[in-house]
Formats: sequence, C-alpha cells, structure tokens
Amino acid sequence: MFVFEVWAPAASQVELVLDDGERLPMKGGDHGYWSVEVPTAGPGSRYRYSLDGGPVRPDPRSQWQPEGTDGPSVLVDHAAFEWSDRAWAGFALERAVLYECHIGTFSPEGTFDGAVGRLGHLVDLGVNAVEVMPVAEASGERGWGYDGAYLWAPHHAYGGPEGFKRFVDACHAQGLAVVLDVVYNHLGPSGNYLPEYGPYFTDRYRTPWGTAVNVDGEGSYGVRDFIVGNALMWFSDYHVDGLRLDAVHAIYDEGALHILEELSAEVAKLSHQLGRPLWLIAESDRNDPRVARSRAEHGYGMDATWDDDFHHALHTVLTGESSGYYGDFGTLGQLAKAMVDGYVYDGRFSRFHQRRRGRPAEGLPASAFVVCLQNHDQVGNRALGERMPALVGPGLLAVGAALYLLSPYVPMLFQGEEWGASAPFQYFTDHRDPELGRAVSEGRRREHAMAAGGEVPDPQDEATFLGSKLDWGELEREPHRSLLDWYRRLIALRKGEPDLGTGGRLAVRTAYDEELRWLVVRRGRFSIVANLAGERQAVAVAEAGSVVLASAPGTTVEVPAYRADDGAVPGPRPEVGSARVWLSATSVAVVAH
Amino acid sequence: MFVFEVWAPAASQVELVLDDGERLPMKGGDHGYWSVEVPTAGPGSRYRYSLDGGPVRPDPRSQWQPEGTDGPSVLVDHAAFEWSDRAWAGFALERAVLYECHIGTFSPEGTFDGAVGRLGHLVDLGVNAVEVMPVAEASGERGWGYDGAYLWAPHHAYGGPEGFKRFVDACHAQGLAVVLDVVYNHLGPSGNYLPEYGPYFTDRYRTPWGTAVNVDGEGSYGVRDFIVGNALMWFSDYHVDGLRLDAVHAIYDEGALHILEELSAEVAKLSHQLGRPLWLIAESDRNDPRVARSRAEHGYGMDATWDDDFHHALHTVLTGESSGYYGDFGTLGQLAKAMVDGYVYDGRFSRFHQRRRGRPAEGLPASAFVVCLQNHDQVGNRALGERMPALVGPGLLAVGAALYLLSPYVPMLFQGEEWGASAPFQYFTDHRDPELGRAVSEGRRREHAMAAGGEVPDPQDEATFLGSKLDWGELEREPHRSLLDWYRRLIALRKGEPDLGTGGRLAVRTAYDEELRWLVVRRGRFSIVANLAGERQAVAVAEAGSVVLASAPGTTVEVPAYRADDGAVPGPRPEVGSARVWLSATSVAVVAH
Repeated sequence: MFVFEVWAPAASQVELVLDDGERLPMKGGDHGYWSVEVPTAGPGSRYRYSLDGGPVRPDPRSQWQPEGTDGPSVLVDHAAFEWSDRAWAGFALERAVLYECHIGTFSPEGTFDGAVGRLGHLVDLGVNAVEVMPVAEASGERGWGYDGAYLWAPHHAYGGPEGFKRFVDACHAQGLAVVLDVVYNHLGPSGNYLPEYGPYFTDRYRTPWGTAVNVDGEGSYGVRDFIVGNALMWFSDYHVDGLRLDAVHAIYDEGALHILEELSAEVAKLSHQLGRPLWLIAESDRNDPRVARSRAEHGYGMDATWDDDFHHALHTVLTGESSGYYGDFGTLGQLAKAMVDGYVYDGRFSRFHQRRRGRPAEGLPASAFVVCLQNHDQVGNRALGERMPALVGPGLLAVGAALYLLSPYVPMLFQGEEWGASAPFQYFTDHRDPELGRAVSEGRRREHAMAAGGEVPDPQDEATFLGSKLDWGELEREPHRSLLDWYRRLIALRKGEPDLGTGGRLAVRTAYDEELRWLVVRRGRFSIVANLAGERQAVAVAEAGSVVLASAPGTTVEVPAYRADDGAVPGPRPEVGSARVWLSATSVAVVAH
Repeated sequence: MFVFEVWAPAASQVELVLDDGERLPMKGGDHGYWSVEVPTAGPGSRYRYSLDGGPVRPDPRSQWQPEGTDGPSVLVDHAAFEWSDRAWAGFALERAVLYECHIGTFSPEGTFDGAVGRLGHLVDLGVNAVEVMPVAEASGERGWGYDGAYLWAPHHAYGGPEGFKRFVDACHAQGLAVVLDVVYNHLGPSGNYLPEYGPYFTDRYRTPWGTAVNVDGEGSYGVRDFIVGNALMWFSDYHVDGLRLDAVHAIYDEGALHILEELSAEVAKLSHQLGRPLWLIAESDRNDPRVARSRAEHGYGMDATWDDDFHHALHTVLTGESSGYYGDFGTLGQLAKAMVDGYVYDGRFSRFHQRRRGRPAEGLPASAFVVCLQNHDQVGNRALGERMPALVGPGLLAVGAALYLLSPYVPMLFQGEEWGASAPFQYFTDHRDPELGRAVSEGRRREHAMAAGGEVPDPQDEATFLGSKLDWGELEREPHRSLLDWYRRLIALRKGEPDLGTGGRLAVRTAYDEELRWLVVRRGRFSIVANLAGERQAVAVAEAGSVVLASAPGTTVEVPAYRADDGAVPGPRPEVGSARVWLSATSVAVVAH
C-alpha cells in the first residue's frame, strides 16, 4: 500500500499513471495537493502523473529515475536500507577539513561505489568530511550536477538511491562526514516539467542560469515546502551531515521569513531529533554576515558561507592574475585582511562590480567561513579547467596550501589538489536536447575563446568529461608524491595543534611587505611565515622559536645574541621582534614560539 | 560663484548649458562625477546639461523646475530663506497624531500657501503632524505626486522651494511637525531623463510601476548617494521632521547593506547634529519587523511602518467588503489581533496572496505602527474614490474613528476625514505626453470598470482633480460639524490620557463576539467598548466604571448589586467581569474604570 501525493494547484484533474498503463484519478485536497491510495503499490512501483489529461510526466519529488529524466519515477523504501552507522554521531563544523569531490570524475568508475574504493586515501590524507557535488538526477549520463531536474533522486548514472546510501554509510564507517551540494536557486532546463505542475518559477527576478525559483510569490508555500522537504530528506533518509547550498544569492526572497532562515530552523529541529550536528554551508557572493548570523540575532542561521574573497586574495597573490573579478584583488594586504576579517570587500568599492560591496562580518566566528585554494568553480570555470600547478611552481603551491590549511577558517580541498593531479577539471555536460546541447557548446566557446587562445573544450563531448577524471596512478610518482606528503603534514599539524585549528580569527596578527613579498600570520604560539619572493630572504617575527614545518630546506630562525643595557647579563629571552626567519625563495615555514 | 556637479558615469563628455546658450565643458572626476566652476553663476541661474553632445536636459538633482519637467533647472540658495523656527525642537513619534494631506486638493488654492491658511483648523482639531503627499516635480500641473521626475525640486504648481519652506515654517510656528512623502522605488515616466545620465534603473527586478531603481547593481553607488542625499536635503534645507517612504517593498536591494539601513544611519547622524528627532516612516506590505527594527538588532532602523493589516481589519469589519485583498479580512478576531500584535498576517497563509505572509512583530514598540481608517490609497484607489461616509452610516463611522484613534499605535487621519468631507479623493493625473495620458485613462477604466458599474472618472480630466478638492464650506454644517466634534474629543482624550496614547500594545486586552458584533479593547484603566450590531445590547467589561466618552446617547454602565458570600457585607468593588455596558446600535463608548 502506498499513498501517492503530488502538488498541482492549477490542475483541475490529476491522474496517477502506473507502469502497466493503468490510470487512477487522484483526489484534490487543500492547497492543491492531490492524492490517491494504491493498495498494490510499494517499493519498486513505477509511475508517472498526467495533469488535465496531458502527457505523462515524472513525479517532481521522484525518489528515483532509473531511466533518466524522461523515464518513470520509482518508489523507494528508505526504511529498507541496512545502515551500519548507528554509532555515528557526527562532529562540529569547527573540526572539519572538507574535501570537495565530483562523483563522476573522482574514481575511474565514476560512481558512488567507485568513490567508496578511494575513501582510504582520504582518511590517510587526514581530511574528515567529503563534500559531494550535486547528485540530483539531471539530463544525460554526466555533468557537474548543477542542472538537476529531479532534486529528490540521486542520479542513476552514479548508482541511484541505494548507491548514495552505500557511499554515505561507507564514509561514516571510516569516520568521514558527508556534505551534499544542493541547488535551490534554479533547476536544469532539460527534463524539467515542474512549470506544468505549479508556480515553481517566477519572472519577477533574473538569475544568470534562467528563471528564478518562486519562493516568495503566489503559490510559494508549495515551492518552499518542496525545498525544505528536500533538504530534510537528505539528512533523514540519506544520513548526510551537511548541505552545501549553491549560490544562495540567486534565491530571491522578499518575504518576511527568508527561506534560508526557515530552512535552518527546520534543520535545527531535525538535528535535535537526530542527536547529531547537521551543517548548512551556503555559497553566497554577498559578503553579508546576515547569512551566517544566528536566527536569534535575526540572521539566516547558516553555519558557514564560502569565502570567495579569501580565495581570490590568495589566488591573485600566488598567480598574479588580474582578469575579471581577480582584478579587485592582488595585494598581500587583502590576503592579510581576509585572514582576520573574513571578507576583503566589507563595504568597500569594487571596481569590478562598480558598487560598494559587503559589510563587516561582525560577530561571526571563524567557523562561518569556508576557504580554499581551489574548488570546482575556480578551476572548472577557467577556459581550460587547469589546476593550480599549471599556473604556479611547486614553491608557491606549497605556500598557498599552507596559508589556507593553517588559516583560522574551515579549509576545503578540491579532489586531486593534494597531489597536484594533472587532469584538468573542465566544464562538461550531456544535455540530451540537441538544441540545448549545441547552445551550451557554443556559449562556452564564445565566453572563453579569447582566454583559451581559441581552443575551448566542448562541454558536450564525452572526451571532455573523461579527460577530467583523476589519474590515481600518478599518486605515487613525483612531484605528486611530495606534494601529497606536504598536504598530509599541514593537515596533521592543523588537527594536532589547537592554536592552528578553526577559530580565533580576531586574534590573528599579520605582517607583510608588498614589495619584499613576505607575509607572516601569527596564530597563538605559531607563526606561519611565507616568502613569496623569487629569492631567499629573512623575515622578522615577534619572538624566537623553532621551525616545526618548512616547505623547503635551509629554513632557519636567527636570534641575535641578547645583551642587557649594561652589556653584561643575558636576559631570559630575546627582544620582541628581534628574531628573523630565513626562508628559501617561494617557500613557507611554521615557527613555534 | 557656483560649482556645478553632475553624475554621468557613462558619458565621455558633459557640458553645462546656461540659459543664454553658453556651453561650458565639465571636467570628469572620480566615479563619473563631472564638475565645473562658474564664477558668474548664483541663485536664480538657469541651466541644463548636455551629455556627449546630445539634447539639453534638466539636472537630475535640480532644486527648482519653475517651468516644469522640461524647462531649465534653477539654482536655489537654501541659506537665503529666513526661517522663524529656531525654537522648534520637534518631538518623538510616540506623541504624534498624523494628518495626511495632498497640497493640490487640501485648500481651494491648491498650493503650499493655500495650505498654510488652513493650519488653524488642524491645530483646533488636535493633530500635531502634517504628512504631505509627494511634492517632487512631476509632469503637468496636478497629480497625486507618486510620479515625480525631479526628486529634489518641490513642484512649481505648489509654489516651488520657497513655498514649501514657508509651509514648513508656518507649521512649526503652530506646533505642527511636517512629514514628507517621498518615492524611491520608481520614478515617473514623464520628463524623466535619468536613464540618459546613469544606471538609475535596472531590469533585474520588476515593480508594478515600471523599472526598478538600481540600488544594488553596477553603478548603484551613485544612485544610493542620490537617494540618501535627497532624504537628507529635506531635513536640512526644508526643516521637515520626517519622511514617509513610499512602498519600500518595491525597493529591491540584494546587497549586504540595505539602502534603508544606510539611510536610517545617515538620518540618525543628522538628527544628532540638528538636535531634533527625525522620523522615517516606511510603507511596506511585507509585514516584516526587520524594517522597523533597530540597526543594533540588525534591522533597517525605520521608526515606523504603515500597518495596512490594521486598516483592512477595521475597514472590513465596518463595511463588510470582501473584494480583492479585503477578502483576507473581515473578522473582529483579526481586528483584535491587530490591536495587540500589529500584524494580522504574521506568518499565516493568505488566500489572496496564495502564500504565507509576514512574521510576528517581536520586539517592536507600538510606535512602530501607523494606523488609519482612511488614507489616500484606501480612498483614492477605489473606482470612485469615495470616502468612508459613503460606505457606512454615522454610527459605524464613529466606531471606526474611536477604534484607531484610541489604539496603541500612531494614528493618521486623511484630509477631510474629520468632518466626513463629501468630496471624493479620486485618481487624477496630468501626463503631458498624450499617449501616456491616454494609456493611464484607459488603464484606469479597464481596472475599475466593473467595480464602478461602468463609470470611471478619467484621471486626465481636470474635473476629476477639481472634484477632489475639499469643500471647506461644509465644515460648519451637519452632519459634518458633529463628526468633527467627535474627532476632536477622541484626539483630546488620546492626548490627555497617558493610558490611551501610543504604547503598550502587548498590554492591550481584547474581547469580542463575532456573532453579537461587539468588541472591547482594554488599555490601562480604560475600556473602549464598541457595539457594531444594528441593535442595542449590553457588553460585559472587566470592572465597573463610568462612561467618559460615548458616540450615542443612552450609554450606561450597569453594575449588579454586589453581595459577599455571606450575603451581608458589600465589598469594596463589584466582581471582575460583572459590569455591563449598555450601548445603542452601532455606537462606541470609552469607560474609565
């Protein structure tokens, strides 16, 4: 027995269409919800709906689309899965070291099960939370995932609902939390029949990816329930530990209760019920502390937001790039500011945006910022999808890694970054609608032709996808092996030293010299000392100390002999500011004082 | 000598064009501001600008457009006006009884000076703050004012800058504060050349009145400075005491610092400098307490918002109307809720809007709500612009007046309401563009044809404007005279009794019976007892007391003889709940306990 329910407020007649062609009329209830009880239906039943006698369409809340976006929906019995993670209690976001991965390219198999086979590497690396790019059913067999059409159904090409549960269960078994990337600001254009069902979209606002989702207009009650219900499902039915909400700045909500606030309140309730922390991490370009401020303080109650300013400041300091939004960055001063304030643009005028941007992140803890050196966007949105090692030498690469992995914020790695994977991460799609596919290919070519010097990989070409898969064979070869070791040591240091974990952003002290290209970040009893210059130099630090980690040989701490005023009695310790760290060209060291 | 300055960020050449035809090239500065110093210019100088050799256009920040929207701009010396209000110190919004008026129809003359001649009536009535509908220069000679094109220039037909200053000065001389209605959510379509000057508008959002104002996109820094500067000007140069911000829900700001918050912070600074309270009153349909919450608590820092829910609850209870948004209202329970909670829709589902609406007004003081029985919108947006006396009898009219004038909120009257003016307040315009004029006439006709039974006054017809002028001759005739007396007594009671002033909304206690049609509002030692039924009835109140004000004769308080349990000793006062107030049909009384 199963009660089918679907929201179709404008329909005057809705039918459930079973796989054998049987059509069952549904009963209209309050607020446009239709339902019908089917005694013979159960897990595995295949079905679709027909509105007002129109064509059959999958269920907007389909749990499984084994044949893709145009096939039937299939009932899933979530209670049937045998979880082995009863002892899993999760942990606070403060403790997290995140690792972003894309199921299709992370393992050779490109599936959830394939990814399970690589979890040992992550444990060995020291990260403790896997952030999975979106898995919702989208058109075709491959893609980044941001064009999902069935938000409730794990993609059939990755292994469907069962596969995702096995993945989460395996992560928990190895002590890894799971964060799932979800997209509520738009839906994919292919195989998306939501507009036929109800007012899911609105033309009152514009997003870069098409019509905005209607969370504040007529009928928004149903859309909000759809979104909030979806979020809760991943926590309840799939045991995930967190959600990463894509581009929340494109979720336009002019109502009195922002949907992010409603969502965080519901997730907090569920967290209480489940007895484990549930994280909400938002991607937002607003630099608005309201997003991560607590609800008690009239914020939206997200646990964290991605801190793009930190990335851009770090990226530009390392690469010297200045095109597009990177033009707003480029100084060590900005990177130093991001280390303390979180945002660089906290009300300042942005030349790129031609407006004042952001506001000070007053009251936000360090755990409210997720920082990275690379992520799917910053790599994949480049014309050729090339990674950091293609842009800077191994010295600066080591410096970059140290600066964010030892920052006060929650660090996030991007798959393969830890060994300098040679595979690019390019933009790939598999739109089944040939016209849309052509449009995407051409759009990509047009947008990036100049940057790429003419050659832009075709997103629709399967080779683009295949070429973005990690090559696990290179892991044991140089220079990959050394870089991996450096990442391991940085993560271990962060996890082993409370002074270097997430927290205390306002206690961070920085010093830098734009001309001499050095930066010192002081956290508790440690100084992270970076020499970005192409030659060896000495950098002053506040106190004497010893090098606990260095990316290059020949790093030493020099303490001048101390003499009291009378020149006779040696003091207990050298004068503040008198110690100097000698660093090789483009290298970094951690000094314990 | 005068330094002309204009913002034209996209222009590559800007000329100042003086009245004699002389063209002076301006010098481009930072962020698209152009300037030129003219030794011979001064107050009275007439000028325009030409961008990139194009046609001459008025100054977007023109202080005076004596010949209308297409004439030259004229320099005004604000320091030259001789103010007599040096002793004016303003007062807190809590103490205000507002009176909304429209300069064109308030007095026979339809000017600022004409209005000055009627201030004695307002003082006599007991109100202490005049809220003036928008005065910014708009196309033509008459209109409501919401289509302003030159936001910095008081309308030439009302008397221009000098006239407005004389008006404010005269108000202050008589103890009246002045609130000015300003429109920052859109600009009038006629005579509006702002798009030629810069990115004042955006198509990223839609408003009911055309393109939205760009306060968060590229170039928004200049638009925000334009708006904030305009608001500050009215306080500084025209000595107004408050601004009423039109439809702030249509000011779309997705930046981290909402322009309303920026505005309130700047106004707070100016208030401190000037040493007098400056009010910001927003019209918002959001029912979002963030708008009037303090900046310290992460709100926008408005002093108050219009409480449409209160109006609608009161209006529908009196009239029984249920068309359009009135369909969401109609019960005494809603009116009682509005008396305590401010909003009726504070998260509840609205059938009219087909969504959940608003959120509880936690933490807001009673002074954060402005309430009314009538206002320019609720009267003027009716097909025929008819006032309350055309809809209900004198009994319910008196009840309605008492319920809002003795509510815990800041009350606002609409011009002529106090004497039941027989002139309607209809929608009138004077668009000089004939095509636009026709479109407005036809649009109005189409929108309201059904409600008006076919006859819709033509907004463009001057007769529609003239017919909306108040007839001051009727003031001394019945039934106007009695109604005026009732308003006077209500206002005097409110001002004389601290228990009946603005405040203590959460201390209000209500009781009502939907079927018997009575409502009791208890405030401090007073009960406001309303009988909305068509027949005489007795209404129970908590304690004995005496009638201090009644809208109809024959109102008495009945206290049953009190006997203690032993039947012997009379107690000090009757039992709680045992007193009853006898009220005539459709009448109201105030009982002091």
